[in-house]
Amino acid sequence: MKTHDKKDFPVSNVRRFLEPGPIVLVSSAYRGKPNIMTMGWHMIMEFEPSLVGCYIWTENHSFRKSRECVINVPTVALAPKVVRIGNTSGRDIDKFETFGLTAVEGEKVKAPLVGECYASFECRLADARMIKRYSLFVLEVVKAHVATSPAFPRTIHYRGDGVFMVSGANTGKFRRHFKPHNM
Amino acid sequence: MKTHDKKDFPVSNVRRFLEPGPIVLVSSAYRGKPNIMTMGWHMIMEFEPSLVGCYIWTENHSFRKSRECVINVPTVALAPKVVRIGNTSGRDIDKFETFGLTAVEGEKVKAPLVGECYASFECRLADARMIKRYSLFVLEVVKAHVATSPAFPRTIHYRGDGVFMVSGANTGKFRRHFKPHNM
Repeated sequence: MKTHDKKDFPVSNVRRFLEPGPIVLVSSAYRGKPNIMTMGWHMIMEFEPSLVGCYIWTENHSFRKSRECVINVPTVALAPKVVRIGNTSGRDIDKFETFGLTAVEGEKVKAPLVGECYASFECRLADARMIKRYSLFVLEVVKAHVATSPAFPRTIHYRGDGVFMVSGANTGKFRRHFKPHNM
Repeated sequence: MKTHDKKDFPVSNVRRFLEPGPIVLVSSAYRGKPNIMTMGWHMIMEFEPSLVGCYIWTENHSFRKSRECVINVPTVALAPKVVRIGNTSGRDIDKFETFGLTAVEGEKVKAPLVGECYASFECRLADARMIKRYSLFVLEVVKAHVATSPAFPRTIHYRGDGVFMVSGANTGKFRRHFKPHNM
């Protein structure tokens, strides 16, 4: 599977890819051992600094110990691998190797980017206070890489019961109703 | 605009409508005065109890004081009203009246449901500890109402800059890759 050519992207605009609610892949590394998990529960929390709230269950040792990760946005072409990544544990296998994915070196974190994903956001743990109660990690996006085309990827959005919604048409036809400062 | 016939729905399954990341309308009432706001930043945090994390800015007095609200899922047919609701303040106008929306009485909360929305989830504030720092309200869904058809609504997902992604096809073709307990 092809990797995407990516360009630098403003971290304050990662909402364009996360706010519509796609399933993402979270990649991490601890003591040189890489891992990937599938994540569906996340939300934008702030533009500047660029904060993302993420639900990460307790078993993900790699991310918990390194306190750094990369949030990668896969397209529908990766859907079968996204599901199988969610089925497996990084304790047993190297998921990059098992699923034929390319680990690309990060610029600001030690966690690897997933080359086959459309966008990759390098993150550092910004607030650990909600982890114990809610498994909620507040991450700061410190560097963003986004593919140069198409303008918007065909992402997958989970509905439960094995059903994905695939992102549909993008339209600016409602733009005229917005007050500029609310866009 | 038509209101939707809705049936009772298990609160632990509201993820089916919120996890794909739609823009929602949050309705509330304080001392008999109703209000509606547009919200794009939310995430599922737990199934049982059914918890949803929501970013609600400080100005929303109605919800902040009543500590109850309804999360309503609009379809693309409501998009122009959703944008205009986001442009206006409940201090100045009655949004139900201004936008021709139907306030339907809740069963468990005093906040009104928006009749024209596909699904409505009655919520109570479950955790106020992250409000001050992050404007993050943890809500518990205490009652859910969902339209009887179609199976999935055509929802709108915000991309910034006045652009919406409209939800696309729903597919179970990747279901065979799931381990049953991971669905």
